[in-house]
Amino acid sequence: MSASAPTRRRLDPDARRRQLIELGLRLLARHPSAEVPIDRIAEEAGISRGLLFHYFPTKRDFHVAVVTAAAELLVDVTDPGPAPPEERLRRSLEAYVDYVTENRDLYVALVRGAAGADEELQRVFDRTRGRFAERALDILGRPDAGPLLRTAVRGWLALVEETTLDAPRTGGVDRAALVDLQERVLAGVLEAAG
Amino acid sequence: MSASAPTRRRLDPDARRRQLIELGLRLLARHPSAEVPIDRIAEEAGISRGLLFHYFPTKRDFHVAVVTAAAELLVDVTDPGPAPPEERLRRSLEAYVDYVTENRDLYVALVRGAAGADEELQRVFDRTRGRFAERALDILGRPDAGPLLRTAVRGWLALVEETTLDAPRTGGVDRAALVDLQERVLAGVLEAAG
Repeated sequence: MSASAPTRRRLDPDARRRQLIELGLRLLARHPSAEVPIDRIAEEAGISRGLLFHYFPTKRDFHVAVVTAAAELLVDVTDPGPAPPEERLRRSLEAYVDYVTENRDLYVALVRGAAGADEELQRVFDRTRGRFAERALDILGRPDAGPLLRTAVRGWLALVEETTLDAPRTGGVDRAALVDLQERVLAGVLEAAG
Repeated sequence: MSASAPTRRRLDPDARRRQLIELGLRLLARHPSAEVPIDRIAEEAGISRGLLFHYFPTKRDFHVAVVTAAAELLVDVTDPGPAPPEERLRRSLEAYVDYVTENRDLYVALVRGAAGADEELQRVFDRTRGRFAERALDILGRPDAGPLLRTAVRGWLALVEETTLDAPRTGGVDRAALVDLQERVLAGVLEAAG
């Protein structure tokens, strides 16, 4: 099924919901904005605005669903799969840097945007950061970490985000140097919180 | 002059602008939101909505002015004044942690919120982070730092933000432990980018 082809086919509710969210992500990837363009999405899905609101009672519900999907996608594309710890760390950092660099505007509008938005979107952001933190602690062999190391690892994730967004603007830090830096700082964070 | 007392006095344009921004900050500190409540502000300033729009042509202009003021206030309250480098670092981190902890909702809505908003607000956020980065590099005696260290220090500032917002939620990291962590990670960042 191509979600971009206008269709008036009947879809079961879950499939329709997924189709609409996917359309939302695709449209926002081209034209990032804090607002999902509801009319455009109903049009591209070949359904009425009213039917869209049947699946997502408010614009806001739809926006939260799209942000959640963007966050889940990011967690998925950065999953390093099974490998030795150092390789898992490197792979997930490279995948993160590549995804965020290629989808910068979408990332900033949806994922980073959620961090400073209302409580519901902050919860989506926190959950995502929490999942990245669990993955990092797992890679470090410290799934049982105490509060200081947990907070420190969340801080490191914020550093990974900021350096990834900043490096391309400086023109002087390439992908390998960036990932090296992120890896080395994690070692420093472990020591600082140890 | 008390900005909170309703007044129909004539104020010169700069004073009026400052009064309105100050009211905006004060109202948002009590009820943080992505939207500045224009009607409420005009009412508290004792001016008409129309006159408010004379000073700030759009709601958006006013919002940008309030976010800019919030960011400048943060730069000011964290200024450590003259002291030896280590003391300057400690003082500015303590002031930052105290301010952000006490004004958490305002900080998240206005300062962090700007990082994921539209281009104009992102520029305000970037300028603020840039000023903090200059200060940190100055304290480190590295005002001439190259792109890697600059990016790394910006990343460290993101870590300082995230750990400050996260620590109170864990219940297990007090102010001293938090600032210690932030200081130690900066040493690690210097080494990693060195």
